[in-house]
Amino acid sequence: MIRAGIVGATGYTGVELMRLLSQHPEVELVTVTSRVEQGKPVSSVFPSLRGVIDLCFSEPDTAGLSGCDLVFFATPNGTAMRQAPELLERGVKVIDLSADFRLKDKDEWKQWYGQRHACPDYLSRAVYGLPEMNRAEIRGAQLIANPGCYPTAIQLGFLPLLENDLVAPDSLIADAKSGISGAGRKATLATQFCESGESFSAYSANGHRHLPEIKQGLSAVSRGKIDLVFIPHLLPIIRGIHATLYARLTEPDVDIHGIFESRYGDEPCVDVLPPGEHPGTASVRGSNMCRISAFRPQNGNTAVILAVEDNLVKGAAGQAVQNMNIIYRLDETTGLTHVALSP
Amino acid sequence: MIRAGIVGATGYTGVELMRLLSQHPEVELVTVTSRVEQGKPVSSVFPSLRGVIDLCFSEPDTAGLSGCDLVFFATPNGTAMRQAPELLERGVKVIDLSADFRLKDKDEWKQWYGQRHACPDYLSRAVYGLPEMNRAEIRGAQLIANPGCYPTAIQLGFLPLLENDLVAPDSLIADAKSGISGAGRKATLATQFCESGESFSAYSANGHRHLPEIKQGLSAVSRGKIDLVFIPHLLPIIRGIHATLYARLTEPDVDIHGIFESRYGDEPCVDVLPPGEHPGTASVRGSNMCRISAFRPQNGNTAVILAVEDNLVKGAAGQAVQNMNIIYRLDETTGLTHVALSP
Amino acid sequence: MIRAGIVGATGYTGVELMRLLSQHPEVELVTVTSRVEQGKPVSSVFPSLRGVIDLCFSEPDTAGLSGCDLVFFATPNGTAMRQAPELLERGVKVIDLSADFRLKDKDEWKQWYGQRHACPDYLSRAVYGLPEMNRAEIRGAQLIANPGCYPTAIQLGFLPLLENDLVAPDSLIADAKSGISGAGRKATLATQFCESGESFSAYSANGHRHLPEIKQGLSAVSRGKIDLVFIPHLLPIIRGIHATLYARLTEPDVDIHGIFESRYGDEPCVDVLPPGEHPGTASVRGSNMCRISAFRPQNGNTAVILAVEDNLVKGAAGQAVQNMNIIYRLDETTGLTHVALSP
Amino acid sequence: MIRAGIVGATGYTGVELMRLLSQHPEVELVTVTSRVEQGKPVSSVFPSLRGVIDLCFSEPDTAGLSGCDLVFFATPNGTAMRQAPELLERGVKVIDLSADFRLKDKDEWKQWYGQRHACPDYLSRAVYGLPEMNRAEIRGAQLIANPGCYPTAIQLGFLPLLENDLVAPDSLIADAKSGISGAGRKATLATQFCESGESFSAYSANGHRHLPEIKQGLSAVSRGKIDLVFIPHLLPIIRGIHATLYARLTEPDVDIHGIFESRYGDEPCVDVLPPGEHPGTASVRGSNMCRISAFRPQNGNTAVILAVEDNLVKGAAGQAVQNMNIIYRLDETTGLTHVALSP
Repeated sequence: MIRAGIVGATGYTGVELMRLLSQHPEVELVTVTSRVEQGKPVSSVFPSLRGVIDLCFSEPDTAGLSGCDLVFFATPNGTAMRQAPELLERGVKVIDLSADFRLKDKDEWKQWYGQRHACPDYLSRAVYGLPEMNRAEIRGAQLIANPGCYPTAIQLGFLPLLENDLVAPDSLIADAKSGISGAGRKATLATQFCESGESFSAYSANGHRHLPEIKQGLSAVSRGKIDLVFIPHLLPIIRGIHATLYARLTEPDVDIHGIFESRYGDEPCVDVLPPGEHPGTASVRGSNMCRISAFRPQNGNTAVILAVEDNLVKGAAGQAVQNMNIIYRLDETTGLTHVALSP
Repeated sequence: MIRAGIVGATGYTGVELMRLLSQHPEVELVTVTSRVEQGKPVSSVFPSLRGVIDLCFSEPDTAGLSGCDLVFFATPNGTAMRQAPELLERGVKVIDLSADFRLKDKDEWKQWYGQRHACPDYLSRAVYGLPEMNRAEIRGAQLIANPGCYPTAIQLGFLPLLENDLVAPDSLIADAKSGISGAGRKATLATQFCESGESFSAYSANGHRHLPEIKQGLSAVSRGKIDLVFIPHLLPIIRGIHATLYARLTEPDVDIHGIFESRYGDEPCVDVLPPGEHPGTASVRGSNMCRISAFRPQNGNTAVILAVEDNLVKGAAGQAVQNMNIIYRLDETTGLTHVALSP
Repeated sequence: MIRAGIVGATGYTGVELMRLLSQHPEVELVTVTSRVEQGKPVSSVFPSLRGVIDLCFSEPDTAGLSGCDLVFFATPNGTAMRQAPELLERGVKVIDLSADFRLKDKDEWKQWYGQRHACPDYLSRAVYGLPEMNRAEIRGAQLIANPGCYPTAIQLGFLPLLENDLVAPDSLIADAKSGISGAGRKATLATQFCESGESFSAYSANGHRHLPEIKQGLSAVSRGKIDLVFIPHLLPIIRGIHATLYARLTEPDVDIHGIFESRYGDEPCVDVLPPGEHPGTASVRGSNMCRISAFRPQNGNTAVILAVEDNLVKGAAGQAVQNMNIIYRLDETTGLTHVALSP
Repeated sequence: MIRAGIVGATGYTGVELMRLLSQHPEVELVTVTSRVEQGKPVSSVFPSLRGVIDLCFSEPDTAGLSGCDLVFFATPNGTAMRQAPELLERGVKVIDLSADFRLKDKDEWKQWYGQRHACPDYLSRAVYGLPEMNRAEIRGAQLIANPGCYPTAIQLGFLPLLENDLVAPDSLIADAKSGISGAGRKATLATQFCESGESFSAYSANGHRHLPEIKQGLSAVSRGKIDLVFIPHLLPIIRGIHATLYARLTEPDVDIHGIFESRYGDEPCVDVLPPGEHPGTASVRGSNMCRISAFRPQNGNTAVILAVEDNLVKGAAGQAVQNMNIIYRLDETTGLTHVALSP
């Protein structure tokens, strides 16, 4: 059994990790931390976990994290980079669900996250945990930078096109829509029911923090320089990301659908739909699956890729568990076989 | 392994049964039927089941249902009473999720369902599958009448009060609210997103079909004649029932909360909340749990019980699986340990 | 033209008042105040008012409120009782949409609102602004206590029964459901989209602040002592209240529907539906109408009344404008003829 | 007073026309037709119109449409082209909200709408009713082809860029999202609450009927050949369209925002937001306004335009009334000054 801990377990990625880990056959969840809720039973904060998790939230400092085999950080940006190094030095494995270790360049990190990075040396040692891209490196990793929710869907959508050199890398557009849980479990005016429900809008059109992460990943597989326009939108649903991706084809007669099928045919957590079908976010609600389909409208020179995922599962906690499974050489979908809740 | 079939698997209780049975360790789902969708892969109708269920829908007549150990009927009212008898005679066990076998009185059935009952002899042989009430009888049953969604929550809420003779049985009021999936998977104007979303209303205030079912169940445990006012409402959520129950207390100083705790303390699928907490439907989304709390506002003479369930799980498919587990002497929660999807 | 001001215009009742007053033919909106947003254009806080209202938010102290003919308080409880007296002394009329002047008994006020009342003398001078009950007094009033959202629907539903002595006054149950805008425009965890959406629960089952207000109003028209159980629920819609009301009939053969028709036939803002129809909240979205229907299930001894309103209009800002119209002897629906937005 | 009739008044554009026309000071609504609901009071089908419209639905043949000054067709595609010619010959003005007269080319019409056009001669005589583009022609028109909902937002977003020759006309991408009322008021499975709620997906990615309409309009103002990729998505809200538009800039240093301000500064129904603000669909709910903002992310060579409208108002019924106002030389916003319902 893997002895696991969660730091910052009161957010949505935290409660989702608890949902998944509580039913994982190879994991014993030994500690969950929260400064704000310390001392309270998990089940009093999350009634959905009544009868499932008997732990109380602990103070991080006294939680015995160093006695864990693996610690998940489900903390706001800026926490893991301060607390993870000590655990890493003691041999604990760390999967960080925040953005702290996702960028390789410390200056770029500072530019987008507004503070100096606290342990820049670890940026190069961290493995970016997108299994469909980095499976081999993940296997031997001690520190995983778990990808962001948007970057997961967008990279999975663009990868086959770029790897096969089928599109102009400077023509990428990602029109992405995220359910509101992507904004986290905190009281803000913009994410109130009456403000975000029955409405729809874009945000951060001038630049969103996930942009450099996506460009970094795509650049690694592209022959040319990536130019990407990324416009995120807030979608009035709880869970789900839908990425609609556009790129200019450089190969006139390519079978896009076939490219995706051959790229992802063996992937357990990516599902390429039959030609002509449009994925819906509800088809992945609660599951660790990314469903994709590829179009070429009017046989023109634009490829249109549609990719959906549950932002809290394949876009966060599920992918973290998938990475853990890879590290421990378990079957990659162990504890991740939840069927999407539909309707 | 239990060889199971589902008749009428294209409704919401059908797809929910498939979700649950596909992951049940003791069940092999061998056939699912649908006249309308026959020949089509299940996964083309329900993308959430892609990679999970490889069956195609069959015509009921040629589906080999008689080769099953157990057949679930997830059909509209009026179908099971015509098709189940033949299976029962061949020794197949049947769990009917429709209303066909729920009432003991064939005249009452005719009055509420608008047609003569096709096999009235089976009404007395059917066991009403509310485990918290009828566990012993369920164990030996061949034919289970799986309770309705409203009746499950409402009976679980009133049972402890009536069994202990604490309330006037002629003072019962059930103000119940159901998510829209309770109306089934069919195209109707009233359940269109634009008609039912962002709105709320009561329906069938003059009498709903679940009324006689609830009265029949409560009468069995009550010393006096049950009089029940039952007003259902359509709630703009997909899954979830919330029953707010009122009854006039006849015992002035009873500890209502304690009564519920002692009644349900050992029940694996009923959870009594701590005093003062209000259950929310989201806390049971996708799970087979009914959460209940009991109040006595202003220490007056009215007991107020709040009960929530997922109408498709504890209110339908999950309860059917629970009944199956009891019949086969499996642990009662086998395949039913899904944690509620929250948020 | 009535020169009007709004104190505390950044909440939902405030923005709704601005929507209504901006189109009222007899009103000039001269000042709107907000401590937090002072100096900002109204339209930068509320994009829906771009091109409609050109004012900036002012500091209350320097807003020139005493130069207004009428000031609306759309403030949190506890503000109007401190600021209104000075205006009243200068001859300004005041309509308070908060709870500050709704209760006649200062001790009861203190008990439910947790602080001493700052100007108890005004409690008796304030007129409770439910036009269907108090029209004559409203006409001559200088200070109006605008009713709460729940109390409006619940009192309108019970009034005809109590006035005609048709039900036992100690048997009243109000199962009420409110859209989330009723909780106000502030960032709280419980009203986040991901917490309140796709869910439903009761709250304050042990006692809600609107209880004494409702009892006070109903007591005034009842021969016997009112006993009321009031359970509010949070409904995942933005606007709308649905009250489902229960009372034990003492008259066996009364025509309930007829009673309602004759009581409200001449009321411009109450609509009694044809027998058997169920009102939906969407049918009053954005309008100042309360729609009601009356049932007697199974011809039993329980009257069931269904009443809907838009909590921000007939339950708050619209009713305030209706009161203003009455005070100024305008046609009562002036500026209130908005047709409900449906769908 | 303009004597107006509505053909096909039981759909969402029909009921929205009734909402708007019932309060228009210069219109008398004399007849509304519906084959299905003939004989029924309008208010029994649409409770929101109780007390507002006293008409009953008539059979179109006997409705006296030829006695109207103006008839609105709110019918499914294929009806107006059969019924409008007779009215036009009698001198009645016609505003068709369906697609029957939107395309100039009868072959293209047949290709996208799957039937031969019944009166191709009228295609050239019809005026495309986008006031911001065709105001002068609308003034003298007898037959107006009211634009589609997507085409309104998308054309308004691209027009300033193409008119000023600032973008490559073969680089246009329209990622558009529509509320579900855009699918009309009919019972379909895909638009059921449980199918479309809490989900999001694209549809018709290979080609949507609004594509030729948009290309026809944009071609008229473009120097080069328009190439447009148009991907519509179904958004789980009732009302609202959000178009996110992308185009490759050919002018490196243009002030996009200034271009939009000068183009639309005098338009009463288009509102250009301040730089950096993102329009939300809720800010136009129920109003005849299109709000737009323009971005140039990372100062790159892609223009990103965000445009929102209420699909039933500026995208349908409101624009039809706007066209009527222009025809009759009324102030263009007469009867269209509704403030958006927010929240």
